[in-house]
Amino acid sequence: MASSLRSVRLTLSQCKSLPITSSHASNLLRSTTPRLSPSPQDPFKRELATLHDGQIQASLVEVTPSKDPKTPPPPSTLVFGHTFTDHMLSIPWRADSGWGTPKIQPYAPLPLSPSATVFHYAHCLFEGLKAYREPSGKVTLFRPDMNMKRMNTSAERVAMPTFNGDAVIELMKQLIRLDKHWIPEEPGYSLYIRPTMIGTQPALGIAPPKEALLFVICSPVGPYYPQGFKPVALYGTTEYTRASHGGIGAYKLGANYAAGVAAQKAAALQGYVQNLWLHGPQHHITEVGTMNAFVAFKRDNGVTELVTPPLDGIILPGVTRDSVLALARDHAAGVLKIPELTDKLVVSERPVTMIEVKAAAQLGELVEFFGVGTAAVVSPVDRIGYLGEDLHIPTGPDGMGPLSRPLWKYLTGIQTGAIVHPWSVDV
Amino acid sequence: MASSLRSVRLTLSQCKSLPITSSHASNLLRSTTPRLSPSPQDPFKRELATLHDGQIQASLVEVTPSKDPKTPPPPSTLVFGHTFTDHMLSIPWRADSGWGTPKIQPYAPLPLSPSATVFHYAHCLFEGLKAYREPSGKVTLFRPDMNMKRMNTSAERVAMPTFNGDAVIELMKQLIRLDKHWIPEEPGYSLYIRPTMIGTQPALGIAPPKEALLFVICSPVGPYYPQGFKPVALYGTTEYTRASHGGIGAYKLGANYAAGVAAQKAAALQGYVQNLWLHGPQHHITEVGTMNAFVAFKRDNGVTELVTPPLDGIILPGVTRDSVLALARDHAAGVLKIPELTDKLVVSERPVTMIEVKAAAQLGELVEFFGVGTAAVVSPVDRIGYLGEDLHIPTGPDGMGPLSRPLWKYLTGIQTGAIVHPWSVDV
Repeated sequence: MASSLRSVRLTLSQCKSLPITSSHASNLLRSTTPRLSPSPQDPFKRELATLHDGQIQASLVEVTPSKDPKTPPPPSTLVFGHTFTDHMLSIPWRADSGWGTPKIQPYAPLPLSPSATVFHYAHCLFEGLKAYREPSGKVTLFRPDMNMKRMNTSAERVAMPTFNGDAVIELMKQLIRLDKHWIPEEPGYSLYIRPTMIGTQPALGIAPPKEALLFVICSPVGPYYPQGFKPVALYGTTEYTRASHGGIGAYKLGANYAAGVAAQKAAALQGYVQNLWLHGPQHHITEVGTMNAFVAFKRDNGVTELVTPPLDGIILPGVTRDSVLALARDHAAGVLKIPELTDKLVVSERPVTMIEVKAAAQLGELVEFFGVGTAAVVSPVDRIGYLGEDLHIPTGPDGMGPLSRPLWKYLTGIQTGAIVHPWSVDV
Repeated sequence: MASSLRSVRLTLSQCKSLPITSSHASNLLRSTTPRLSPSPQDPFKRELATLHDGQIQASLVEVTPSKDPKTPPPPSTLVFGHTFTDHMLSIPWRADSGWGTPKIQPYAPLPLSPSATVFHYAHCLFEGLKAYREPSGKVTLFRPDMNMKRMNTSAERVAMPTFNGDAVIELMKQLIRLDKHWIPEEPGYSLYIRPTMIGTQPALGIAPPKEALLFVICSPVGPYYPQGFKPVALYGTTEYTRASHGGIGAYKLGANYAAGVAAQKAAALQGYVQNLWLHGPQHHITEVGTMNAFVAFKRDNGVTELVTPPLDGIILPGVTRDSVLALARDHAAGVLKIPELTDKLVVSERPVTMIEVKAAAQLGELVEFFGVGTAAVVSPVDRIGYLGEDLHIPTGPDGMGPLSRPLWKYLTGIQTGAIVHPWSVDV
């Protein structure tokens, strides 16, 4: 049996130039590979997980608890993304055998060859989502299916392996259950989950990597605005572009982020907190730093129009963006009543230029401007530096506006379990 | 002394929000840090190298020879970028102390935190250059100063540390001298050198990384065309864009390469060897896969015009591009006589569209089309798939053309030492 498996593998590795898919490997092996669930000590378990049908098998996970668990630090000392829990999930992938055995093991360095794809050609992509601990102790995730769907889209864009998202959600839940004592009990705190995929083939040469690693790490994080909302000042960036049509702006690839740091730095040097990406000669509003952008305008008939740029290939399809749109549309359609949202609303996904925003500000028709994303949920803006002058944007005494305040309250209500909603998924 | 150093360090790390530069650190420490050359065993050597003046100090390199050197494989079995020599160079950097001690040590995996910047935000950049072994046994590098200059430009674009290129050239030479028996003696073979820089700060959050690693690995490589030149067929890519104005196309960042693999894959699926990046509505020729593009046209007055797109922000400033331009210009000006280059030449850096190339092909005025880069040096093209039809491009019986052949011969003559030239630098 072992020699039969080995001989099939040799054949596969000898045919590297052929487009061998994991299902080919599976067909070749189907007749000789036992499918009954192996015992944890079964030496075939690893072979099975590697060769099964190339897909991630959550049931075959190997869990190695940490022998040296840490004491979570006091929540008030947390800095975003600097503290990690005791465990991580990792799942290797090879072009000739598909996804291997998932492992939950102590958080530890990844020993990668200096020639690994990720160090040279930026084959890396990620997701960000949060696990919340409800007062009852129940832990939930917010719309993890959306993250898995987008992660697959990102992977496909850079010729990396796709995977069954449900299996990774199941494995993330196991990881979170193991480390759930890391979620601080204080309100506003959560566990930030970072699924990541990197190319690990130890060879130079620009091509789809033949080896990859999907891993998930967890970081306890505090509220984005511990002292209440603080609106930010944006610098309207026209010197750099974040994305272009035919490019990668619609994908959550690492490559978008290294390229954006220069614009962020330039904004900071001029005294702004973040940059606003303005695209093309008409200065279309695309994104706020690494968040999606929303603008609200007063319309003639007493209606407020809530606008966000459409998903035309240069905008990241944000989960918070999608959630805000869905809630606002349901409210506008009368199928949902969001408390305190008194404006009569129309919701638009349409192009919006800085010229339109500037004109509205001058006419007193600009209701508000805000960014949305997983980390901050909603980030109100009170000033935009644009071509040498500052545009001032109204915000309320609490730093928010008439749309962002009720939308933020409702959304975080769902996320923290105060409002029962199918978007919140039990861990 | 040790405690004084430690206390300064604590102060620095407490001030993380301030823009502490390595020269600040240096000024703080100058009065207490001895500058006389330490003995190799001196425990202050590491401190010194770390804190000196933040710059890379080649003289402080620590060399650890491999205890288990490998036997280089037979040259004929080499696959590009799959085999590495016994040693590597690495130099760590920290925002609070600058460049640390350079180390030449056995080639080994890099143990990086799963939260390291490079895995999430694609803070990675690289260079590629070759070391040649002359028949006399002398080893040379080709224009390494150009690579160091570009590497610094790339680093700056993504807010990573710059460095003194001369020190890294000196360290690369030491590394190559140690592993020079890996350069095969057969003609056409060389040692491909890959300087790389990655962000290594173990923290999430999009910002300039506070820790980085510069490393250099070496791979023995064979001739790009072992059986003589083989012209390639290109697919004119209009569905994807490689770069845009205000973006990162002019920098050798990993981020450009992951994004390009999809276009390469699409070209391959349609039966082409590589893709030709066509930019904007007029289908400007920008690059050939990951090489710079050259086109030659017959002009009325019996002159041949050699054209390459200008460095307008979306073109990589290639070292081979620069070398071909310089040689062709010197020949056109009569200050250099390139043997076998009989065409009367004008050399242009100007925009060139696919429409112009297609019209020239139809009128019989297209002399040739080729890509240039470090790996292949010159790569002739015999066919371009463009909007559903194939354009045929003349090539000679040896696969090359009247310009690419003599230029390639002259350039490789310099690289291999047959032609004495200051571009070739002794190792």
